[in-house]
Amino acid sequence: MIRVLTLGGLVGAALFTMASPASADEGMWTFENFPAARVKADYGVTVDEAWLQRLRGAAVRIPGCSASVVSAAGLVLTNNHCITGCLVQLSSADKDHLKDGVLTATRAEERQCAGMWAEVLMETTDITDQVRAAVAGKSGAAFNAARDAVTAAAEAEACKGVESARCQTTSLYRGGQYVVYRYHRYSDVRMVFAPEFATAFFGGDPDNFNFPRYDMDSAFLRVYEGGKPAKTPNFLKWNAAAPKAGEPTFVPGNPGSTERLLTVSQLESYRDLAIPVGQLQRSELRGRLIEYGRRGPAEKRLVADPIFNLENGFKVFFGRQFALNDKAFMDAKRDQEAELRAKVAADPALAGEIGDPWGEIARAQEAYATSYLSYRQLESDAGRSSVLFSWARGLVRAAAEREKPSAERLPEFADSRLAMEERRLTAARAIEGPLEQLYLEHWLLKSREYLASSPADQAAVLGRESPEGLSARLVSGTRLADPAVRQALWDGGMAAVLASEDPLIRYVLQMDAAARAARAAWERDVEGPTDRAAERIARARFAVYGDSIYPDATFTLRLSYGKVAGWTHRGTEVTPFTTIGGTFDRATGEAPYALAPSWIAAEGRLNKDIVYNFTTTNDIIGGNSGSPVVNAKGEVIGAAFDGNIHSLGGAYGYDPVLNRMVVVSSAAITEALRVVYGRDALVKELMTGK
Amino acid sequence: MIRVLTLGGLVGAALFTMASPASADEGMWTFENFPAARVKADYGVTVDEAWLQRLRGAAVRIPGCSASVVSAAGLVLTNNHCITGCLVQLSSADKDHLKDGVLTATRAEERQCAGMWAEVLMETTDITDQVRAAVAGKSGAAFNAARDAVTAAAEAEACKGVESARCQTTSLYRGGQYVVYRYHRYSDVRMVFAPEFATAFFGGDPDNFNFPRYDMDSAFLRVYEGGKPAKTPNFLKWNAAAPKAGEPTFVPGNPGSTERLLTVSQLESYRDLAIPVGQLQRSELRGRLIEYGRRGPAEKRLVADPIFNLENGFKVFFGRQFALNDKAFMDAKRDQEAELRAKVAADPALAGEIGDPWGEIARAQEAYATSYLSYRQLESDAGRSSVLFSWARGLVRAAAEREKPSAERLPEFADSRLAMEERRLTAARAIEGPLEQLYLEHWLLKSREYLASSPADQAAVLGRESPEGLSARLVSGTRLADPAVRQALWDGGMAAVLASEDPLIRYVLQMDAAARAARAAWERDVEGPTDRAAERIARARFAVYGDSIYPDATFTLRLSYGKVAGWTHRGTEVTPFTTIGGTFDRATGEAPYALAPSWIAAEGRLNKDIVYNFTTTNDIIGGNSGSPVVNAKGEVIGAAFDGNIHSLGGAYGYDPVLNRMVVVSSAAITEALRVVYGRDALVKELMTGK
Repeated sequence: MIRVLTLGGLVGAALFTMASPASADEGMWTFENFPAARVKADYGVTVDEAWLQRLRGAAVRIPGCSASVVSAAGLVLTNNHCITGCLVQLSSADKDHLKDGVLTATRAEERQCAGMWAEVLMETTDITDQVRAAVAGKSGAAFNAARDAVTAAAEAEACKGVESARCQTTSLYRGGQYVVYRYHRYSDVRMVFAPEFATAFFGGDPDNFNFPRYDMDSAFLRVYEGGKPAKTPNFLKWNAAAPKAGEPTFVPGNPGSTERLLTVSQLESYRDLAIPVGQLQRSELRGRLIEYGRRGPAEKRLVADPIFNLENGFKVFFGRQFALNDKAFMDAKRDQEAELRAKVAADPALAGEIGDPWGEIARAQEAYATSYLSYRQLESDAGRSSVLFSWARGLVRAAAEREKPSAERLPEFADSRLAMEERRLTAARAIEGPLEQLYLEHWLLKSREYLASSPADQAAVLGRESPEGLSARLVSGTRLADPAVRQALWDGGMAAVLASEDPLIRYVLQMDAAARAARAAWERDVEGPTDRAAERIARARFAVYGDSIYPDATFTLRLSYGKVAGWTHRGTEVTPFTTIGGTFDRATGEAPYALAPSWIAAEGRLNKDIVYNFTTTNDIIGGNSGSPVVNAKGEVIGAAFDGNIHSLGGAYGYDPVLNRMVVVSSAAITEALRVVYGRDALVKELMTGK
Repeated sequence: MIRVLTLGGLVGAALFTMASPASADEGMWTFENFPAARVKADYGVTVDEAWLQRLRGAAVRIPGCSASVVSAAGLVLTNNHCITGCLVQLSSADKDHLKDGVLTATRAEERQCAGMWAEVLMETTDITDQVRAAVAGKSGAAFNAARDAVTAAAEAEACKGVESARCQTTSLYRGGQYVVYRYHRYSDVRMVFAPEFATAFFGGDPDNFNFPRYDMDSAFLRVYEGGKPAKTPNFLKWNAAAPKAGEPTFVPGNPGSTERLLTVSQLESYRDLAIPVGQLQRSELRGRLIEYGRRGPAEKRLVADPIFNLENGFKVFFGRQFALNDKAFMDAKRDQEAELRAKVAADPALAGEIGDPWGEIARAQEAYATSYLSYRQLESDAGRSSVLFSWARGLVRAAAEREKPSAERLPEFADSRLAMEERRLTAARAIEGPLEQLYLEHWLLKSREYLASSPADQAAVLGRESPEGLSARLVSGTRLADPAVRQALWDGGMAAVLASEDPLIRYVLQMDAAARAARAAWERDVEGPTDRAAERIARARFAVYGDSIYPDATFTLRLSYGKVAGWTHRGTEVTPFTTIGGTFDRATGEAPYALAPSWIAAEGRLNKDIVYNFTTTNDIIGGNSGSPVVNAKGEVIGAAFDGNIHSLGGAYGYDPVLNRMVVVSSAAITEALRVVYGRDALVKELMTGK
């Protein structure tokens, strides 16, 4: 699944910058800079301003995902996997909506998803010149303060007087461009339809990021205003006909994050160190969670969601590693880098300005190799997934940081973020002791193992205790599960923290100096030099390629183009379509290949020849989940929900030969709504737009 | 630990051949071809024939390990980890010798290790010319038959009339040389002394293959003949003085297996595919076993040994991956390959004879990438560690193969191996149902995951069942735990197998065609072409470098030279010594850093300054465990028991900068025998040789 993914300790330097000159179908283009001429030449499709405006006005951003408006009455299409939080929320002891889905017959039955929002982009304003003017001659904290003052003022100005507006500045091309995005935000989002989990995620983890595929990974929401369905005249027309091979496809949506400007030496560090270590640790933890779940039904329920997330993350990095281990992929990255370096070298003035950032980054990789394990185990991955640990560290650090001026603090404790941090650290939340201990013990075991050649860091984490004994002592002794205890520590500041006898607080206090030192070394020797060098690489690209390139993904609206196509890998040809009939052939009756009862009952009445899922060449990534897939006329022919395993290398570069998006067709959604679920009113709304 | 390791599905082509021209201290040299001149030049030590003879006559081979004679009364030094099987065997419900060690006060207390043997090499005979003459013009089965006839005759001749002699032909330099080794075999081996597990393996898995280190990984055996201690006038003198930095060290022993002739493209396949997949699966299984052991004390005992073995294997491949991910290491391999290719190209006659084996192997890597996962999951790693599965497959295949002439069978069922196979398949052995199911389920889960892009193979393994359901059904239903059932299936042959209703037999029958097909594809497309090409690379090396090179390890007697030295990695200098005092500083009281009670009691009386463990540059590998480390005078100054993490890359090439052997010093062994264990008679025997 291609939700936005948190990368944990992996992102040494987040490079939000532009990529290389694009190859066929490559690119997550801004609407302002869409390569219409190229699309015309390649596909014969005319993409004019009106066409773009229609798409933009119907494209929707929801938390972590994308979506689209598909009727004049606020109906919104997205993926089932994007709204599982709401399904859990709406469930009760009697009714498990995640498992069984949601069917509504009338709008009165549409229930609100608490906290959910949906945004439509209304306007973008380029404020690059104002920012440049304000920061001129400044650096460090003064630079940041000046930049933030300009962007805050611009956001306030753009959103002035409109309650439902939300404004947010995004830096594109790594500071090459600053843009204020003004969204219309819908804060009342209700659930209209969701299929069963077994239908939405048929094939489960084994089929995740693979194809052929048979997933009804779709759901419908409706945005409301003033207690009524919002009026949304600018919607995308629903097309229930099957797509054809080679047909052009366009995907507006919000790709979350790419790192296509990484140098080859950085990719090698990911390939040889960061990703493998993360994957090995993830694998061992996966084994532990699976086995823990074998104890009984209660344990099985407890680990279901953690396993789900862990397996998705594992698959993502498996795909990335796969790309980085692919000789052709790395050769292409090497060629791109060599080309840019040659062009820079050919221009003495530019070469003088740019220097040798590639060499600087390559040298920073030595520090990467030296510092990574300590940084990971003591800082970025400390405590693994233990909520208790993250609270304890947050409370200890917040107390220390709040005694300093905002500008001198660790950035996550700056004044502007303090309220959010307090909410996070003091909120009530259910704690599962056995799982907490499992996470802590696993982290401590791996720290002991991976810090074997850094005895001082090993000792900072474990002292003279064993992973088993220490984790048991911390989890059984801590009272941090109680929100009042945490609130008192927050309110009491450093004095309260130092006076606390809570074992987890004392433990974090004891190891924090070593953890901060590991972070400082990482920022000083790896992140800092890498950021400085990467900025000059970005500048070089601007100088050489101009705006024939697209910015790295930033979870803002982009448009991708491509076509319906399969692929061929190692002699095996994968056709781009599956049919509804295929899911019955694939079904075994055992999870994750067990059909929902509704589908078993409907088998005889379904048209099995209808295209179910299909693949296209569109260049998308996590955050694009739920994006509408539209044809040349701008009609919805499906919802993007996944990529193939090769698409995961898309984080670092687009491979036109292998990278494929996976879509559930409008045709199949329509057929299922009609035949399996009997949602005639919803089908009518889709077909008529009303 | 550096016991001989079974590589499972990893070894595509076992290349028992010679390596590149040796760098400083590199080489596992035969005694016949020891580079004495080089040692004289580098270390000023004169290694003459008498010196070599003395070493050779005291060097001992035991199952999977090495050892040495250290008194005239048959006393043998080796590692504790080499004789754990005997310790378990000698234990009873009252006494756990693996945990508590063995102390004997008199020879009457020395108990026999059943099945244990010890061999001293007496003579080697080069029969290359006879073999060459016999096989001339032959190929395939005729070639093998002719070769085997010559070697069998030569072995019989060499061992004629000597009951205790054992003769074995080994092919060195990948068939470049055939040598009959005649050993004197001691079949009555008794236990004299072993320390506690906590003392021998202090630091456990976290410190395994690391340094600093504090392990008394030593043990003493005694060889007997005619019920009395054997007379062994040719023994190594014991030296209880501490080694010095830079002091030359020599290690006679039996390195098990190296693959130093692999081409760069093969190493890349290991690095990018085979090792990572194996490690990820090992990690997940490790997590499962750890978590299974958390259920209770009985479960913890059950998984202790499987975890121990799994973690050792994991560490070995972690080190190998580390080397393969090291740019300098791979660059050195590339340079060596380029040099040889250039020398071949410069000699037209040789080039014509050799062709382009490197290109052929590189092309075979494409087949490797295509076939590996199916070959691994269906064939080489099928059933994972399930004993029941391996019995079922063995019985099914033996029945099928025995219907063919011997020469046409899968080689493991040739007439010469059939008796051994029958013993394996019909022996009584305790079966742990839950562990069997865990292994099978894990294997099935991973097969489903890794065969996602080979649906036919996936279906062959799982049918329409789930991993959980299928493994439960097979383990609960099978009766193969009963040796009588297996014997009946063996005796009844194919008719009995086909008539069996045992679910495991039926399951294996059903998937065997797919498994055999995966194996056939692997042998045809990967192993075959690789073997044929590698043979020509070996020939090219002979032609270019002659006998200035040493053969790949073959678990036969070799001699390595080097010196006491630490190393520097990423700016961190590791000194080559630890002291007895260090183990008390390192101890935490919690396993694996808990001291044995005997050491705690002795702390005040021990000389803490004595060197405990030390590192040297000697080039050794698994199989060398227990080897004596001798000084220039040929005196024992320690027992080799491990390598550092970098030494694990030694499977593919020796790195003089980082590759280090880890030794427990004679000085520390002597101090512990005296002060901790009060073994005065043993100390006296060591010091006087009597």
